[in-house]
Amino acid sequence: MKAIVFDVFGTIVDWRSSLIHQFNELEKELGIELPSDVLTDQWRHQYAPSMNRVRQGDIPWMGLDDLHRESLVKLLNQHGIALGEATIDRINHFWHQLEPWPDVQNGLQRLKEHYIIGTLTNGNLSLMVDVARHAKLPWDMVFCAELFQHYKPDAEVYLGACHLLRLPPEEVMLCAAHNYDLGAARALGMKTAFIPRRTEYGPQQSKDLEAEEAWDFVAADLAALSEQLID
Amino acid sequence: MKAIVFDVFGTIVDWRSSLIHQFNELEKELGIELPSDVLTDQWRHQYAPSMNRVRQGDIPWMGLDDLHRESLVKLLNQHGIALGEATIDRINHFWHQLEPWPDVQNGLQRLKEHYIIGTLTNGNLSLMVDVARHAKLPWDMVFCAELFQHYKPDAEVYLGACHLLRLPPEEVMLCAAHNYDLGAARALGMKTAFIPRRTEYGPQQSKDLEAEEAWDFVAADLAALSEQLID
Repeated sequence: MKAIVFDVFGTIVDWRSSLIHQFNELEKELGIELPSDVLTDQWRHQYAPSMNRVRQGDIPWMGLDDLHRESLVKLLNQHGIALGEATIDRINHFWHQLEPWPDVQNGLQRLKEHYIIGTLTNGNLSLMVDVARHAKLPWDMVFCAELFQHYKPDAEVYLGACHLLRLPPEEVMLCAAHNYDLGAARALGMKTAFIPRRTEYGPQQSKDLEAEEAWDFVAADLAALSEQLID
Repeated sequence: MKAIVFDVFGTIVDWRSSLIHQFNELEKELGIELPSDVLTDQWRHQYAPSMNRVRQGDIPWMGLDDLHRESLVKLLNQHGIALGEATIDRINHFWHQLEPWPDVQNGLQRLKEHYIIGTLTNGNLSLMVDVARHAKLPWDMVFCAELFQHYKPDAEVYLGACHLLRLPPEEVMLCAAHNYDLGAARALGMKTAFIPRRTEYGPQQSKDLEAEEAWDFVAADLAALSEQLID
């Protein structure tokens, strides 16, 4: 194994807490009230359906920033919340400023000493560069759906990264907190590592609490994964 | 200005000294004699012509690692040097282990505090990831010709990076030791910074000793550039 690529939203960064926190800060600043938790959860609920419109060919390629903004505008309308364009842009930018889980920075630094590390994310490139800068993530490479004009779990994303690394899939491992993502990677011959993030979707989370297949590695977090991988 | 992208071979890494050093080490190890300086210079001399075959459509897309290897095999034949495939692979890999100029690591770290920093290189992705890991270059993103299936100075490379960064060209600066590269960037609306590397091609270097146009910034090295850019 030469390289490890990581899912980002949920696996590396705690998007839900980060978004709610930023909604709360905006409320204070603008002196308005927003249903921050509900908006966050409903916004993320549009994530897969919005990408599926691209994946199924219903609409041409759109980056995640643009899909996020479309979903946000629709959501604000549904709630009868009227905000200016600049404020909507600012809220959309919340996704660029997500906090990492506590084990991430040290874990990635440790893994980087032995493996090439990169993202394998549905976020568009500029979004992912901003997240990495904000969260101080020491990626060797930012692989993202936008480079391949396909969203995960389309095979093009996984194989595209392996191809650019000039490595066969069996020498590349996907690390993710989501079983569906690992299933797609394994079907293409990649190694797999599962890390549960049991509060990614909040206190009521009901999925991805455990590994649903015998993935190559299952670890509590990136610190534990690096211990399993490195003597 | 939001982002600075850098030419790598010559601007960031001292490919010539690094190659000669590695040829010399190989000579000692294998107990053979090689015309290291001549091989290095003749090998690099094939760089532009080999890419031009792709740029002109004479051959389909090939990454730089593959072009390098073709040129190397031809060159060894011309010199009547017989080496095994594994040794040829190893020599081709010399390009993955290049040393940075002395100002590079601190200069990039300083610039990264204020700007997105990335490569804009004709090297293929895996080559560039290896160079960055070897030389400890803290890139936010590795942009390379391979992502756009075009070699510099084709416009697709420069504009492709700006597009992925979601920035207009005037908010992206190319930093390079080569006037032709900066000329291509400026023609597309990008900002430009020239840094001379007067020994890149060895003691007899005759080109790119000075800025040949009034580039937006001209600095002795990355330390000096960061001083000009950052108060």
